[in-house]
Amino acid sequence: MSLDNHSVGIVAPRRFCCDAPIPLKGGGQLPSFELVFETYGTLNAARSNAVLVCHALSGSHHVAGVYADTPYSEGWWDNLVGPGKPLDTEKFFVVGVNNLGGCHGSTGPLSPNPETGRRYGADFPLITVEDWVLAQSRLADHLGIDTWAAVIGGSLGGMQAIAWSLRFPERIRHAIAIASAPNLSAQNIAFNEVARQAILSDPDFYGGHYASRGIVPTRGLRLARMIGHITYLSDDQMNEKFGRELRGGEPSFSYDIDFEIESYLRHQGDKFAGFFDANTYLLATKALDYFDPADACDGDLARALRPARASFLVVSFTTDWRFSPARSREIVFALTQNRRRVAYAEIDCAAGHDSFLLDDAHYHAVLRAYLENIKT
Amino acid sequence: MSLDNHSVGIVAPRRFCCDAPIPLKGGGQLPSFELVFETYGTLNAARSNAVLVCHALSGSHHVAGVYADTPYSEGWWDNLVGPGKPLDTEKFFVVGVNNLGGCHGSTGPLSPNPETGRRYGADFPLITVEDWVLAQSRLADHLGIDTWAAVIGGSLGGMQAIAWSLRFPERIRHAIAIASAPNLSAQNIAFNEVARQAILSDPDFYGGHYASRGIVPTRGLRLARMIGHITYLSDDQMNEKFGRELRGGEPSFSYDIDFEIESYLRHQGDKFAGFFDANTYLLATKALDYFDPADACDGDLARALRPARASFLVVSFTTDWRFSPARSREIVFALTQNRRRVAYAEIDCAAGHDSFLLDDAHYHAVLRAYLENIKT
Repeated sequence: MSLDNHSVGIVAPRRFCCDAPIPLKGGGQLPSFELVFETYGTLNAARSNAVLVCHALSGSHHVAGVYADTPYSEGWWDNLVGPGKPLDTEKFFVVGVNNLGGCHGSTGPLSPNPETGRRYGADFPLITVEDWVLAQSRLADHLGIDTWAAVIGGSLGGMQAIAWSLRFPERIRHAIAIASAPNLSAQNIAFNEVARQAILSDPDFYGGHYASRGIVPTRGLRLARMIGHITYLSDDQMNEKFGRELRGGEPSFSYDIDFEIESYLRHQGDKFAGFFDANTYLLATKALDYFDPADACDGDLARALRPARASFLVVSFTTDWRFSPARSREIVFALTQNRRRVAYAEIDCAAGHDSFLLDDAHYHAVLRAYLENIKT
Repeated sequence: MSLDNHSVGIVAPRRFCCDAPIPLKGGGQLPSFELVFETYGTLNAARSNAVLVCHALSGSHHVAGVYADTPYSEGWWDNLVGPGKPLDTEKFFVVGVNNLGGCHGSTGPLSPNPETGRRYGADFPLITVEDWVLAQSRLADHLGIDTWAAVIGGSLGGMQAIAWSLRFPERIRHAIAIASAPNLSAQNIAFNEVARQAILSDPDFYGGHYASRGIVPTRGLRLARMIGHITYLSDDQMNEKFGRELRGGEPSFSYDIDFEIESYLRHQGDKFAGFFDANTYLLATKALDYFDPADACDGDLARALRPARASFLVVSFTTDWRFSPARSREIVFALTQNRRRVAYAEIDCAAGHDSFLLDDAHYHAVLRAYLENIKT
């Protein structure tokens, strides 16, 4: 395995078991839960250099580095996190965590339900962004982190950064929300709903109890991912990357793959259906749909963000039509109305929503500059 | 039944049987075929006032008027076609036709295959926009129409108008392409592909031979329509019409309907799955994907449109992100490079792609003015 000099190197996930019950926003509680997490860098003596990385819909705790003897196992934000990288592990102690309800090892629908001994499946409760933040705060307690130097995330991860600033204003010094939004638009919800319906109507879904039968609702998951993927890329980038290229040079006059874009989408769908849990997908899209801090303030986002004490960095991408720059500017505007410190960068990048995962030079320069100026 | 003074009134479909074989662009031929059609108004003595209305993905021959004793049976473009309406049946003889491969009575996958006596199902050949035009030309022959005063259509219907101007340049005096495009973008194809995969992966699809088993792949059709519907509406209009309104006032914390937009999409999906044929949906989306007159000219649209002799009216809608105004302007630009007569209107309408079906005042005024100036 060849690692560049800026990789955090070989990493291994750890496990945090919380035996205290956790109350959930939707009602009820989980009697206990486990979170899988990874850390990179060293927590300083003052415990003031910890950064929490929150993942989006399909991410995990494996943010950076590689697993021993596992090729192509780089973390999903490996281009950002490492020694000398914008989120510099020489300076920061970085924590990645698989969220509650996830399917990468944290307590979720695939876990055994202590009440029945069988997997939770559809009986796993719906989880909100605020529940994730509460669970993450228990992990912070466990790690001895009173205050995060920063909480950072893209997309749904950015919503968690915002939620942290509201739920625990004194425990977060900087909130970094990238390619995010203060809530979903009707169109965003519509895409999520079609993805959910694809899963829910898959005959292999079995009302959410497929796993205890050893079955995976592959068709539904595959469609859900294909729909999602269209919204992650920009129209322009798709045209540039795939255009109207025919795989075989000539139309097939069949429903086989004709266009490169079809091949790409099917591949993405198949890959995803091979590792992701359908119930986790359902609950994560619902967490997205429900997130709306302004709702408690009659839709007044400025009033909703008033409790925040953190400094903010908000980043958007010009070609992101899923969470457009206009949505990020709503956050910025609401923060400035509260006279909070907020920096905003709108990055000219062709890659649509997925830009937040790429190492665009301007984007990374913005993050580097902001993070370098955080005092630890 | 109460009809306004501008309705064409009670109408009835007719049937045209063509016993001559029709060659298909994808290879092979149909030995014979039938088209269901309707007409409104009267063909004048000079046979110079005929207008062909081409339907889009889910339309039919039933363009205007109502069926006797059938409530809510107005044609899909009833707001446009009738005495005194923009496409005035006092002046024009208007023809609506269900396309070859359709599911409203014309020869298609639901028809009996003369070779087997069973329904064609998946054995029905793939049909292209050019095949539709050829079949329509046979209907024109049958009706004694040498030259259309105009061929008009929205979306996929507009592509047929363009194809008419290229395949039969001397048989069409005006081509009216509304909310259309010279070909699909990669993103357009991507949406079609997900819709197709939803149908193809429905266990009730049975490789396209569901109908001979008396089964309908309802789940797939429903998802396909939900995906389509998102692209027919604009983000703004969805926010205005549905926003983040919760049906029950409070989140359900379940996968039941929470948001109004979810309810709307499910309703549209269910309705569609109740009447539309899955194989027709598949082949119509393929016809869309394949349409690309510039392909034969190395992507040079101006060169591709050179054979056209018709005058053009091209109309687009500002909020149409499926076939954006930029796509319509490509058509206009290519036509002007050929020094063709072309009028272009970009209508400021919030309703997205579906605007072409609505009676927006400016839009209808443009059509009225253009059509009034056509000499018959």
